[in-house]
Amino acid sequence: MSDAAVNEPHNLYAEGAAYVDGDYVPVGEARIPLTDLGFVRSDVTYDVVHVWNGKFFRLDDHLDRFETSCEKMRFSFEHTRDDLAAMLHQLVALTGFTDSYVNISASRGSFAPGSRDPLLCRNKIYAFAVPFVWITRQDEQEEGVDAIISSTQRIPMASMDQTVKNYHWADLTSSIIEANERGARLPILLDENGNVTEGPGFNVFAYCNGKLYTPDTGVLHGMTRRTVLELAGKQNVETLVEPVPLATLKNADEVFLSSTAGGVMPIRSLDGETFGDGAPGPFTTRMRQLYWEAHDDPEYAEPVRYAAV
Amino acid sequence: MSDAAVNEPHNLYAEGAAYVDGDYVPVGEARIPLTDLGFVRSDVTYDVVHVWNGKFFRLDDHLDRFETSCEKMRFSFEHTRDDLAAMLHQLVALTGFTDSYVNISASRGSFAPGSRDPLLCRNKIYAFAVPFVWITRQDEQEEGVDAIISSTQRIPMASMDQTVKNYHWADLTSSIIEANERGARLPILLDENGNVTEGPGFNVFAYCNGKLYTPDTGVLHGMTRRTVLELAGKQNVETLVEPVPLATLKNADEVFLSSTAGGVMPIRSLDGETFGDGAPGPFTTRMRQLYWEAHDDPEYAEPVRYAAV
Repeated sequence: MSDAAVNEPHNLYAEGAAYVDGDYVPVGEARIPLTDLGFVRSDVTYDVVHVWNGKFFRLDDHLDRFETSCEKMRFSFEHTRDDLAAMLHQLVALTGFTDSYVNISASRGSFAPGSRDPLLCRNKIYAFAVPFVWITRQDEQEEGVDAIISSTQRIPMASMDQTVKNYHWADLTSSIIEANERGARLPILLDENGNVTEGPGFNVFAYCNGKLYTPDTGVLHGMTRRTVLELAGKQNVETLVEPVPLATLKNADEVFLSSTAGGVMPIRSLDGETFGDGAPGPFTTRMRQLYWEAHDDPEYAEPVRYAAV
Repeated sequence: MSDAAVNEPHNLYAEGAAYVDGDYVPVGEARIPLTDLGFVRSDVTYDVVHVWNGKFFRLDDHLDRFETSCEKMRFSFEHTRDDLAAMLHQLVALTGFTDSYVNISASRGSFAPGSRDPLLCRNKIYAFAVPFVWITRQDEQEEGVDAIISSTQRIPMASMDQTVKNYHWADLTSSIIEANERGARLPILLDENGNVTEGPGFNVFAYCNGKLYTPDTGVLHGMTRRTVLELAGKQNVETLVEPVPLATLKNADEVFLSSTAGGVMPIRSLDGETFGDGAPGPFTTRMRQLYWEAHDDPEYAEPVRYAAV
């Protein structure tokens, strides 16, 4: 090891830190087994929590959801809830990032020798912290993004439980490519009944005649979605969590998306049709402001334990 | 390195060999990046070819399908077709296995710096050869397996192209767990219209009144499926590749599955109802025999180039 590395250990984690098999390593060095069922069967669930201004946002709520997902997948771990929280604090502390995207994945692992029973595998935890990820650019957050309705249908609940956050992204990835090729930035996917579901990494909201609509089923119950519903409720805005026909979206006064990777972000147009005058509407703007203000609310925010490193 | 390792280099590959990033390594040491989109978005396609008695079975046909899948995924590689074939020969030669399960995967790779465009990623090839995998035990191959109709629907073609072999297995894995918990061995999944699709790693055939039925859509066009259709055609058996209602399966004289991981395997019962007298029927038995005989047919078989190592 060179003196420079000894003197500047944090440089190791300049691009991020990862947890694999009990070790903390620079994210670029983090590797998982090629034959892990989390890869060769995408038999894995995950969660993403973010750090903003040195504080985790809704860490407990994210870990609640992650633990529920693990139960639904029939995964179990020696790690306690406190172990998982400490792991994520440690990852962010190693990097020193004040704004970070923090991913924790639980994988089936590998088959026990001589067995092909998923329930006999030793399950594994992987995690990493990298710089905060924005799914839209700064100018798009202020001006809105152009979206399309994808020609690909969201993988239905009849095939898998979309409330368990998962890496089955083929429908989402092909929709991203379609959006780009149609001159837009992001796709929104419908379900088999033509109702709105979600897009790659985000939930969708329609604001119409003073009421806020978002789909109830076939979607992840996103933490930013939940935050928006709570904040709207505090503003005495009626929120309707129910099937959202495409027509509701097309005829809305304002449409926006919600994601841990960027918060509340206005949608400017859908399939080439602009909402309103093309500028983000007042409700979306207000929700975006309230969302970022909530990051200082002790109800939601938990300081990263940087000093532990 | 110990003398033993120098003198017995093949011991390194006793459990299998893998190809990762240009290197050949023991399969237990093969690792992929934690942040590879092949993992964190299951943005990957793959193929499995097998070696039997020292010969690849339909290697060219598997590589044709793999290359078609890569094109549909918009993946591209510097590797030529000959490079890929040489890689798989090399993997098997390193192990010395005469019977082997050989997996080749193509992954999206990682985002280019500053980009989130899937089409700008440097795509990657991973591969491994391990001992031959049987999805049923020897006694089950001779006596038949008990199957169920899963309560989970196969991920539909409207969401992703199931002719592109993929790791989106959540529906299949939950169905395996359901089958085991219902006292059966394997699940068969239906589509949104109640028609038969496939099971985890296999296609399904119904033989009824002298005709052979297998689903046309919503399924992988398996290489063993194709072999069965060719062999049945040579026996002047009428083959119908078309939607297969569940009733066709339930009322069939014989039902069997086909998979690279085991060939032709009889299904003894479905949802507790036994086919015929419970013993594999004559057509299934004949197909199983012809399938294994085809492994000596130069039209299908290509000797592994063991000497190249």
